[in-house]
Amino acid sequence: MNLHPMKLVTIVVEALARERITTLLAEVGAHGYTLFSVEGAGATGRRIGDIEEFANIQVEVVLRPEAAERLLARLGEEILPRFAMVTYESDIRVLRAEKF
Amino acid sequence: MNLHPMKLVTIVVEALARERITTLLAEVGAHGYTLFSVEGAGATGRRIGDIEEFANIQVEVVLRPEAAERLLARLGEEILPRFAMVTYESDIRVLRAEKF
Amino acid sequence: MNLHPMKLVTIVVEALARERITTLLAEVGAHGYTLFSVEGAGATGRRIGDIEEFANIQVEVVLRPEAAERLLARLGEEILPRFAMVTYESDIRVLRAEKF
Repeated sequence: MNLHPMKLVTIVVEALARERITTLLAEVGAHGYTLFSVEGAGATGRRIGDIEEFANIQVEVVLRPEAAERLLARLGEEILPRFAMVTYESDIRVLRAEKF
Repeated sequence: MNLHPMKLVTIVVEALARERITTLLAEVGAHGYTLFSVEGAGATGRRIGDIEEFANIQVEVVLRPEAAERLLARLGEEILPRFAMVTYESDIRVLRAEKF
Repeated sequence: MNLHPMKLVTIVVEALARERITTLLAEVGAHGYTLFSVEGAGATGRRIGDIEEFANIQVEVVLRPEAAERLLARLGEEILPRFAMVTYESDIRVLRAEKF
């Protein structure tokens, strides 16, 4: 078995920010991500209803530590001032094929 | 960049418990949460089908360590005896704007 | 409060692999899992659209460390060569009732 230490970055953000986020992920060299719709309430205290335009998405991204740092820095500079977002990082070990 | 150590509490529970859970989150001072529908099987071994009333929800909550402890204690006392639930805690680092 | 150190294994895989994955989970003695549909792009670079047959699922499984090792070994041998998959492990603490 072949486990590599990596970072998982989780981004909960207004669905309106979707395009910006996926572009950002490509730019920082994300290895893979998943994206799904969620309900929720953020630190701002506002609740998100069923209306599509105001729906939240949760994006989970696997990255090397340097790439995670670049992503978090850019999220802080470019997304956090403009959109309701909660973002956090955690430590994971990713399964790799022997050939990697 | 400004990362704060926090706790992520994940709650997988019968959808019927939804109201109780979101009320509990507000009472312990949760900073934000997401909620989405999942299929799954719990420790009880029973499988959850497509019927809305028996569906499961997954709730992910970001909290300060003291608040996570309060939430876990109350989940153990008030929810675990009454509903099928799997709950766990992990360590995360949350991105904050400089102004926080 | 009664928290037990366990492993969380997250599997992002083509929906086609669903049956194989849930069978594998039962065989290695998983305590519980959730399963939900996600959009995403994997390490292979291919993007997943809305077509059901090519949709991705995300499976999150709580396991004892030995069972997590067995699961990761078998995913690496049996699933990774055949399906587009990203799998990772992390450390969690699971809430238990006193009676457990």
